[in-house]
Amino acid sequence: MSDVEAARRLVERVTSAPGYTREVGTRVLSARPGEVELALDRKASLLQAQGLFHGGVLAALADHAAGGAVTTALPPGRFAVTVNLQVNFLAPASGDVVVARARAVHVGGTIGVAQVEVSTVTNGAETRCAIVTATLRAVDMPPGLKADV
Amino acid sequence: MSDVEAARRLVERVTSAPGYTREVGTRVLSARPGEVELALDRKASLLQAQGLFHGGVLAALADHAAGGAVTTALPPGRFAVTVNLQVNFLAPASGDVVVARARAVHVGGTIGVAQVEVSTVTNGAETRCAIVTATLRAVDMPPGLKADV
Amino acid sequence: MSDVEAARRLVERVTSAPGYTREVGTRVLSARPGEVELALDRKASLLQAQGLFHGGVLAALADHAAGGAVTTALPPGRFAVTVNLQVNFLAPASGDVVVARARAVHVGGTIGVAQVEVSTVTNGAETRCAIVTATLRAVDMPPGLKADV
Amino acid sequence: MSDVEAARRLVERVTSAPGYTREVGTRVLSARPGEVELALDRKASLLQAQGLFHGGVLAALADHAAGGAVTTALPPGRFAVTVNLQVNFLAPASGDVVVARARAVHVGGTIGVAQVEVSTVTNGAETRCAIVTATLRAVDMPPGLKADV
Repeated sequence: MSDVEAARRLVERVTSAPGYTREVGTRVLSARPGEVELALDRKASLLQAQGLFHGGVLAALADHAAGGAVTTALPPGRFAVTVNLQVNFLAPASGDVVVARARAVHVGGTIGVAQVEVSTVTNGAETRCAIVTATLRAVDMPPGLKADV
Repeated sequence: MSDVEAARRLVERVTSAPGYTREVGTRVLSARPGEVELALDRKASLLQAQGLFHGGVLAALADHAAGGAVTTALPPGRFAVTVNLQVNFLAPASGDVVVARARAVHVGGTIGVAQVEVSTVTNGAETRCAIVTATLRAVDMPPGLKADV
Repeated sequence: MSDVEAARRLVERVTSAPGYTREVGTRVLSARPGEVELALDRKASLLQAQGLFHGGVLAALADHAAGGAVTTALPPGRFAVTVNLQVNFLAPASGDVVVARARAVHVGGTIGVAQVEVSTVTNGAETRCAIVTATLRAVDMPPGLKADV
Repeated sequence: MSDVEAARRLVERVTSAPGYTREVGTRVLSARPGEVELALDRKASLLQAQGLFHGGVLAALADHAAGGAVTTALPPGRFAVTVNLQVNFLAPASGDVVVARARAVHVGGTIGVAQVEVSTVTNGAETRCAIVTATLRAVDMPPGLKADV
């Protein structure tokens, strides 16, 4: 299995595990070592009081994408957990879809850093609505997330 | 209506509006001008792959609490929207409930800042699992969030 | 005077005003609307105990570059002051020079956001040692910083 | 030597080592395990163009205080280096002195987190001008910073 294929499978596995990311409908658009792209479709349960995607939902999507980007850049058997998340909200997320594109910008033995751009898409046109920097710590892969043989 | 009562009603109104915060079951524990306390009960749809509250769910709860803390400290008719959110994750959120306590530490004409502590509660014992600083911008209250007469 | 020339003059004027940035020897490598590049040469008074550039010195350089990038993207007569600064340190700043490259990624009526990359240069080879995101607020240009007629 | 005495000596040693912190005149007001208080007196070389303490100078002071607070809470022989620094500027630092009070809020095997309050003091009255959260990583104490026997 190639590195790209392994990265894709890992991100799919974590994203589709029972819980929040599956529940909200997170879709994996692409994944390769150090880069992950996720999407989320608009639905009522993800919005705030004015009908925009809730800021926390954008933060969660970015956090998950950052985790994928750094984990896939780590050696096999290691996993990245977020220690710090910084979000700048730039524009209202009013579109039909939000897309988070994460890229690992630093991967050391202990610490990894990812930058994420979050865009909202309306009729195919993208607007950048948040930029995110996440700092992660490398730990051993939790047993439940290891690949099935 | 007292300031405390007005603050409580405003936070309740925004939290129970259709959307993410209502959907996940956000509970308002307390609200007075400049201080808001929210809680969220553990359920499968809020967890990550290892059975802990998802970091993004904590971030969203803190963001919402920060918004409440700053908005209730603003003059009537003004509303705080988050421009920057910084989360430090300190410990796994493994408890039955998470509680976010937000306090406005600065409220100016344009910018407000809130600090939030997020704790997880297991059998009554609290563990602090995240500290959050949010920077918000004051705007006019969106029409849909104004109090019913 | 072109916009580029005006941007350059403004950044030079603020950087060479009496105070910290002049004292440490901040050099303006380039400036145009929304983009500013600064440099600082290694000297003993800018280092920490292990002989690297002090993290705070990198933060200060990035902050100043961010201020320049957003101010030059604002309408004439407006000035950007930092409300939030987020720095991720990626590698030891052990080189002879540090360079900060700031770019405004969002400029609204009230809030501007800049991203900055800080690199250390040794024998012409660059290593990225910090990434920074700054959130700024637009205010009226302080009288002392206006251009001489 | 008591823990408090050891903490004080360590912070003094790092602060007075040749370089930036000594050059600007950083004073150690107090230090005990997990808590460090530093001060800096107003002088022209620390100001920005409007005659206030430069934001970067405040960031540097807070960073140094955070490093002291976490390092003194680590086991002997370990040292904390900053991986992430987040600064919220709340008010102009116009006073005669700035004081940074750092407190370690989390100390794990790999990661420590400190919160810092920066105040400016004029005629004995304090104004909080910045709040800072720093995330640090524990490494072995650099040889040059070990105590003289």
